[in-house]
Amino acid sequence: MSERIWTAALVVIGDEILSGRTQDRNIAQLATWLNVQGIRLAEVRVVPDVQEAIVEAVNTLRARNDYLFTTGGIGPTHDDITVDAIAAALGVGVTIHPAARAVLERYYETRGGITDARLRMARVPEGAELIVNRVSGAPGIRHGNIFILAGVPHIAAGMLDALTGTLEGGRPVLSRTVGSWVAESEIADFLGTTERAHEGVAIGSYPFFRDGRTGANFVVRATDRATLDACAEALIAGLTSKGLEAVDGGI
Amino acid sequence: MSERIWTAALVVIGDEILSGRTQDRNIAQLATWLNVQGIRLAEVRVVPDVQEAIVEAVNTLRARNDYLFTTGGIGPTHDDITVDAIAAALGVGVTIHPAARAVLERYYETRGGITDARLRMARVPEGAELIVNRVSGAPGIRHGNIFILAGVPHIAAGMLDALTGTLEGGRPVLSRTVGSWVAESEIADFLGTTERAHEGVAIGSYPFFRDGRTGANFVVRATDRATLDACAEALIAGLTSKGLEAVDGGI
Repeated sequence: MSERIWTAALVVIGDEILSGRTQDRNIAQLATWLNVQGIRLAEVRVVPDVQEAIVEAVNTLRARNDYLFTTGGIGPTHDDITVDAIAAALGVGVTIHPAARAVLERYYETRGGITDARLRMARVPEGAELIVNRVSGAPGIRHGNIFILAGVPHIAAGMLDALTGTLEGGRPVLSRTVGSWVAESEIADFLGTTERAHEGVAIGSYPFFRDGRTGANFVVRATDRATLDACAEALIAGLTSKGLEAVDGGI
Repeated sequence: MSERIWTAALVVIGDEILSGRTQDRNIAQLATWLNVQGIRLAEVRVVPDVQEAIVEAVNTLRARNDYLFTTGGIGPTHDDITVDAIAAALGVGVTIHPAARAVLERYYETRGGITDARLRMARVPEGAELIVNRVSGAPGIRHGNIFILAGVPHIAAGMLDALTGTLEGGRPVLSRTVGSWVAESEIADFLGTTERAHEGVAIGSYPFFRDGRTGANFVVRATDRATLDACAEALIAGLTSKGLEAVDGGI
């Protein structure tokens, strides 16, 4: 019986990513966090601060994944349109969440007080709950299987931390890395054969160039520990038999 | 008369990005390069090493953008399926490109010689041209308005360098950054008003947290220099009139 695979998608919202001004860090951060929850990041889209683009991405991706995350566009300024766009995607209205309002009033008490602009950050799609923000004022938002996170990576990290262990997932994906000073093209056939010989395992090959030499890391992934180890051992044995040094990077 | 806007999309291909193992650097790198060519990066998708996922992304995005770029999946190993997937998306066959073969034979002459696996990197969708790779062996591939680049960022950078100035675009997007020690929520209304008062300009607001203080960078973007400067000056004047220091970060 094949194992149920839980998937998530991410919509990164923001002109600053598409303009190259800001280097995205949320894709890798979310992916790593999801692995631990036993959920696979299946696809990502980066879209501009344009409502139709957000709606299209959100509706397509939420229909075919167990979870949908967004990052960015939940601040107080005119270019922060994520809440409105997701409400439009869901066909619901936008409302001020009383608990979010209370959080913001408390947060801004010593910071100049609440204003209309700041109150924008208490707006949520109707039917939403809040995700605790341990880092700054405005909370994240959960609406069913949609998770609306901040764009600033360390704030998003805090929101993910608050969600840890609350999402249903499968077994975490385990990985083991084997490194070798070899051009991947030299052992490409061996890699393919080894992967096919171990069901439920995927081997990724990632070349690197260091000190003028060529090497590659082979990342073995599986949800089952014994299967993972059997494949990694076969990889190491095969490399060694070819006279190559295989460095077991472990888990 | 409104200006023709040239757009490009990017498909980032690779399980290593979706697993969080590798931090993508190609989105920001391509975006920055495209700005200089007068082309806007309009959307990005990150897809796994799965043919149907690549085909869907490539066909959707090439239909609605002037250019389509892909990064990743053009190496010699079993998980490198970009060429086959793009050929499938285009409905053409895959062929060995004679010039790519010659490049690889020369490159591997002193590196153990050409092999079947290495020859995989000479495979292109029928009708393709090559993009020079100044960094390592395997070239990039151009098929009409599709540009197939390496996933390793410094190799992709070399391929972009080889393409510099060869693509038709509009006027480059210019930007000017104004920084201030202010919470963006304090001046959100002013930002919106200023943007609306200057047609053809977009203002992005990007908060930061440094030394325990809150600040924000306001990035003004436009293709016309005079319009850009007028908006930036209005922004600086407005901030100053509110008793805030405005740091003109320039272009």
